[in-house]
Amino acid sequence: MSRVRVHNLAMSLDGFVAGPDQTSTAPLGVGGERLHEWVFDTAFGRAMIGESGGSDGIDQEFLERGVEGIGATIMGRNMFGSVRGDWPDESWTGWWGPEPPYHHPVFVLTHHPRPPLEMAGGTTFTFVTDGVLEALERARAAAGDLDIRIGGGATTVREFLVAGIVDHLHLAVVPVLLGSGERLLGADPRLLDGYACTEVSSSGHVAHLVFERASAG
Amino acid sequence: MSRVRVHNLAMSLDGFVAGPDQTSTAPLGVGGERLHEWVFDTAFGRAMIGESGGSDGIDQEFLERGVEGIGATIMGRNMFGSVRGDWPDESWTGWWGPEPPYHHPVFVLTHHPRPPLEMAGGTTFTFVTDGVLEALERARAAAGDLDIRIGGGATTVREFLVAGIVDHLHLAVVPVLLGSGERLLGADPRLLDGYACTEVSSSGHVAHLVFERASAG
Repeated sequence: MSRVRVHNLAMSLDGFVAGPDQTSTAPLGVGGERLHEWVFDTAFGRAMIGESGGSDGIDQEFLERGVEGIGATIMGRNMFGSVRGDWPDESWTGWWGPEPPYHHPVFVLTHHPRPPLEMAGGTTFTFVTDGVLEALERARAAAGDLDIRIGGGATTVREFLVAGIVDHLHLAVVPVLLGSGERLLGADPRLLDGYACTEVSSSGHVAHLVFERASAG
Repeated sequence: MSRVRVHNLAMSLDGFVAGPDQTSTAPLGVGGERLHEWVFDTAFGRAMIGESGGSDGIDQEFLERGVEGIGATIMGRNMFGSVRGDWPDESWTGWWGPEPPYHHPVFVLTHHPRPPLEMAGGTTFTFVTDGVLEALERARAAAGDLDIRIGGGATTVREFLVAGIVDHLHLAVVPVLLGSGERLLGADPRLLDGYACTEVSSSGHVAHLVFERASAG
């Protein structure tokens, strides 16, 4: 069966995966862009924004792993946009411009229905209103033999962890402080029970930690 | 002038440097011993408890750096013991037995006066009741040309960081969750302003992050 994977979830040293006060011009909240500077130092990150150059090495390798064998992505609504409540119209099509970097089906968790959205380059956004298990089932059907990636943000990843259906969790600890924002790891010391830390490595700029569910095939 | 250094301060992935509910048999609080398992896997850690064997490598190297060139240590009272309030008597002489592993003057921050305590092997505990600057001044005088180490715990390290007098901060991020306990990095996103992250490395088990004060000589 396809695996459920989280990759390159960047977390500040004080535990935040996004800053506070997300808006349409601050997708990662105030200061949150500091969590992703390492991405844009790599060739992978440069290519995402249409630029050449950038480093290879461990950071690049982890970014590449995050797209290998992925057939569908699930994300929370705040990762798709900063609109809250009912969709006022269908003008918001995500943070990524006309051709998002997914190139496969993406399922967006929301309480507010909206028709599917077909973008250039093979990305479709489907809005799922029945919760994480429904999203997972639809993503599995769409991914076929490939794996499912949980894109984020914190709330969505935590929901999947609590439900016990994440097989692979990769965190990138970034040596900055945000002070407030969205925490991944809350007050639950048992959130990673049943996981083994299988890798701790570093590029010299970011620490990469990988957890695998012990029962994962 | 001698530098003020913090070394091998172990922090869980959810940000705690000690668990909750410290007692005389749980110096690091409930679950806190999981933060130090990596220490006792090394030759350095094994030697601390009178055993041979253990690994060398990056973890060992960081532990060795923590004692190099140190002439005095400052620690908070909770790092010295679990007694709170007035000292009932002088029977508590620290967690480390008759010959503590410091072998130099140690200054213990407390609100409760107590006469100095001379231990075997060159360690003396001096109890300082006038705060961090007084402790620093006395430690500098005792250390001569050597550096001062801030031993911990979280509150003491944070007090020195807030006072802007830490030159070198080494954190070891351990891939475990504690859920509660003593946090080093609180709600202050500016605590490490003025520091550069000069090293992120990993042993495969622990991520080591080093911050140096930009103005440090």
